[in-house]
Amino acid sequence: MPSSADLALANRLADAAGEAIRPLFRGDWTEERKSDATFVTEADRAAEAAMRAIIENERPDDGIIGEEYGNRNPGAGRQWVLDPIDGTTSFIAGRPIFGTLIALMEGGWPVIGVIDQPILRERWAARVGEGTTFNGKPTRTAPCPDLSNAVLGTTSPHCFSGDQVDAFMGLAGKVAERKIVYGGDCYSYGLVASGHMDIVCEAGLKLHDFAALIPVVEGAGGTMCDWQGDPLNEDSTGEVIALGDSARLEDVIKAMAGHDHG
Amino acid sequence: MPSSADLALANRLADAAGEAIRPLFRGDWTEERKSDATFVTEADRAAEAAMRAIIENERPDDGIIGEEYGNRNPGAGRQWVLDPIDGTTSFIAGRPIFGTLIALMEGGWPVIGVIDQPILRERWAARVGEGTTFNGKPTRTAPCPDLSNAVLGTTSPHCFSGDQVDAFMGLAGKVAERKIVYGGDCYSYGLVASGHMDIVCEAGLKLHDFAALIPVVEGAGGTMCDWQGDPLNEDSTGEVIALGDSARLEDVIKAMAGHDHG
Repeated sequence: MPSSADLALANRLADAAGEAIRPLFRGDWTEERKSDATFVTEADRAAEAAMRAIIENERPDDGIIGEEYGNRNPGAGRQWVLDPIDGTTSFIAGRPIFGTLIALMEGGWPVIGVIDQPILRERWAARVGEGTTFNGKPTRTAPCPDLSNAVLGTTSPHCFSGDQVDAFMGLAGKVAERKIVYGGDCYSYGLVASGHMDIVCEAGLKLHDFAALIPVVEGAGGTMCDWQGDPLNEDSTGEVIALGDSARLEDVIKAMAGHDHG
Repeated sequence: MPSSADLALANRLADAAGEAIRPLFRGDWTEERKSDATFVTEADRAAEAAMRAIIENERPDDGIIGEEYGNRNPGAGRQWVLDPIDGTTSFIAGRPIFGTLIALMEGGWPVIGVIDQPILRERWAARVGEGTTFNGKPTRTAPCPDLSNAVLGTTSPHCFSGDQVDAFMGLAGKVAERKIVYGGDCYSYGLVASGHMDIVCEAGLKLHDFAALIPVVEGAGGTMCDWQGDPLNEDSTGEVIALGDSARLEDVIKAMAGHDHG
């Protein structure tokens, strides 16, 4: 089980990432396109380097899985999963709704998660067995009695391909059109944890994109799973659902499968 | 021509709207679905009422075109165009990237524009003949030498229907996929004015959605027009382009028409 010292360390990692990112927001950076067509800037690199330096210094035996700088100690039972800027496109566009993601995984399961928005100084943090906090105060997901009243989020329609498009549109068709919000990346999952949004449905996510989200959403009373309703892990396909109200899981999966029970 | 007193009044309207909105953000409001399927909350209504009260008191002869409470003095040569919350869906979802829009139109042309984000306390303001300011300081659009490097924004894919989908996809195809940002409403136009985004392309906008954006974007050096490149006015179809670098207008229109010059 993770200790309160582990959570304190995760918070200090987020502090360090924020200090690296803030001076560059809407500022002077250059971008570079990576092999997977996503972009990276000095802010991504500086934030991950700052976090890695702390872990390497204080927890030299722990592993690191970082979006920008790869793996360290891949055999370790404890792995810090780092995404310095989730939502680099929003960072580039000057929108303060990207986030730094930090997870601690033990035996393959995320046991600590942090979503940090360094410009707005908003932070969701969770350790398994404790509730999720938003800026240090307990926060909870909201009940969602019916899909038709849900606020549904997804970052970009381009994240879906082939059958995924139909599945997402099946879900979108159950929600009021004007309650679908686009953009947002990890920030949307924080808003689910705080009860402002009800569902996030995305595809193409990697471990560093979703590991930190799981303790945050679940510690606030929600559920995270793949599109079949199964737990997310390192081998997941990247199809992710976050639900504030776990009672809606069956409705969501049916809507995505095209079964019209509405 | 609008006076500096008119601009000062527009700023006070934004202040009043922000005071009405801030206590309700992520707070205790109820939503109601309007006949056009959009949602309205007490925050929209309170913010518009606060602005209307000031105009009716200080400029009783001016007209008002308000999203929530309709028209006053429709024959007046000066019309204040008010959208208390542009991006109500983002407001509902707890995302601080909606905005209050205020325009003054004289003889049918917007001569003052304000985009105000009351939670982040960010404000773009412009009076024709003067440059646009962001939080009181001059701000400029950015050069965009090539569409392939542009940051392109649109609020929702659902705003396009029929041929509009092909036109938008034609434009999106000229931009790097990972540089398309979704969501944002009026906030995206402010980010164009400040040089963080390059293009916004949307459809279905009404006068109260776009009137305030025109002085802001154009006062910062950009261009706003419809999808044919013509000026926007009360009779526009709601198809809107904002460009930070006016030199890209022909490229954008060609890309939307499906002419592949790339």
